[in-house]
Amino acid sequence: MLAGEDLNTPVSAAMHRGTLPAGKRVRPILLILAARDLGHDSAALIDLGCAIEMVHAGSLIVDDLPCMDDASLRRGQPTIHRRFGEDVAILATVGLLARAFATVASLEPVDSGVRARLVSCLPEAVGTQGLVRGQYEDLHEGLRARSASAITTTNELKTGVLFSATLHMAGLIAGASEAQQHNLHRFAIELGHSFQLLDDLTDGEPDTGKDANKDLGKSTLVGLLGAEAARQQLVGHLTRADAWLTRVYGADGQVSRYIRSLFAAALPAPQQSSRAYFHDGGIR
Amino acid sequence: MLAGEDLNTPVSAAMHRGTLPAGKRVRPILLILAARDLGHDSAALIDLGCAIEMVHAGSLIVDDLPCMDDASLRRGQPTIHRRFGEDVAILATVGLLARAFATVASLEPVDSGVRARLVSCLPEAVGTQGLVRGQYEDLHEGLRARSASAITTTNELKTGVLFSATLHMAGLIAGASEAQQHNLHRFAIELGHSFQLLDDLTDGEPDTGKDANKDLGKSTLVGLLGAEAARQQLVGHLTRADAWLTRVYGADGQVSRYIRSLFAAALPAPQQSSRAYFHDGGIR
Repeated sequence: MLAGEDLNTPVSAAMHRGTLPAGKRVRPILLILAARDLGHDSAALIDLGCAIEMVHAGSLIVDDLPCMDDASLRRGQPTIHRRFGEDVAILATVGLLARAFATVASLEPVDSGVRARLVSCLPEAVGTQGLVRGQYEDLHEGLRARSASAITTTNELKTGVLFSATLHMAGLIAGASEAQQHNLHRFAIELGHSFQLLDDLTDGEPDTGKDANKDLGKSTLVGLLGAEAARQQLVGHLTRADAWLTRVYGADGQVSRYIRSLFAAALPAPQQSSRAYFHDGGIR
Repeated sequence: MLAGEDLNTPVSAAMHRGTLPAGKRVRPILLILAARDLGHDSAALIDLGCAIEMVHAGSLIVDDLPCMDDASLRRGQPTIHRRFGEDVAILATVGLLARAFATVASLEPVDSGVRARLVSCLPEAVGTQGLVRGQYEDLHEGLRARSASAITTTNELKTGVLFSATLHMAGLIAGASEAQQHNLHRFAIELGHSFQLLDDLTDGEPDTGKDANKDLGKSTLVGLLGAEAARQQLVGHLTRADAWLTRVYGADGQVSRYIRSLFAAALPAPQQSSRAYFHDGGIR
């Protein structure tokens, strides 16, 4: 999707570097697995996955800016504004969003009715009811004391909406029923909470590829509840996520296995509270 | 289009303030007149016009940021980052772009084939072959000595591409022929140059609503050629713009009259060089 870019311009180079290195590609993989398990497979999945990843990469560049989190490291590398300058970082973000929307708009070969619905998914996830609002709340409310429910709402906007758009797109392209779409949406929300908690729990660890202790002073669920209670919450979200998946795919879908392996690798050795999820195959 | 926004959040308030005050609305008016003169009139024109204006407003917010032009005044008011903070300004830009794309994506009632083509217009104009690149070049090349042709190319990217998208959208929705689309495109490019020259010529004047002498030190056509030569170039662009319009609409289109009145009001009293355009009805 970025192949047409002239890498000699700093903005294009920044777009590449923001998108291409060493990410886990969770959203594109989820999209592809979720659609395949519903019986759909086509080259359009790759294009859609790239579009989602470009939106995600753009949101990370914004997140790291001096006037936002002022981060110096991301994925073990200097952040985009540190490497290319703030102006280039902002223009690269705009370029990535535009390229993502253009990619979905020119998606082939997809029925035009489906494509029209796909085209709305990304801007809705990005806008003032999605990433933009989550980023604002995180920045402006994050330094105050907040209730667990206020933190949860912000996390949903910051992380949940793009997962939700990802699964919605998978459902749309695969022709999912309304009930399946509902269950995928609920799965996406639980998954968003899981990732946000994982991010909070690993803040301060040396090998995250990000600035250590970036969240110090911010009100997070880990700060509010303590690490062990947050970990239990995480496992609760994962278990519920799994239950929603089961309603769509039965007991042995690829999405479920992928998520399980991802969190097993990222979390420290499971304790009693998470045995049911990690070792007994989740609550079915 | 912004009616659904909750104005109590600073990001939404910044989106409103960036879009709603006292602009000339050149692009929406052009879109509506261009489509009407081709025989099309529908409520969708208003939605499309709003989408284009939101993109334009977003580009102005970015343009004014401290890491870009670092402007303090726009349309006689404090710039968005001065009033709301830099973080809110950047999030408002992302919000405006997302809202613009979402507006076009959900355009009703327009044939789905036409809508699919409309949806691609804005991201293409915004991206690395459009506004993003123009902004980068203006910022990084603008302080060096440049040839008139290099300045002209940058101006085309900074100003021409969104006019071009505007006219392209008008042509698409009105079912223009390929030849008409070609002529509208050529008109848009000439118009973009005219506006850029007008902006350069009025830089430093007290009542532009912007910081005075913002372009001091930048290589502009006015700086390179002098004001009178630049003014002659402007009239040349306007005359050619008019000639392209004539091929689409004949000798008395509304678009032509609108552009003529706009520039007659903005330019100082016409001199010999511009008599043909302003008083003799353009070169037909």
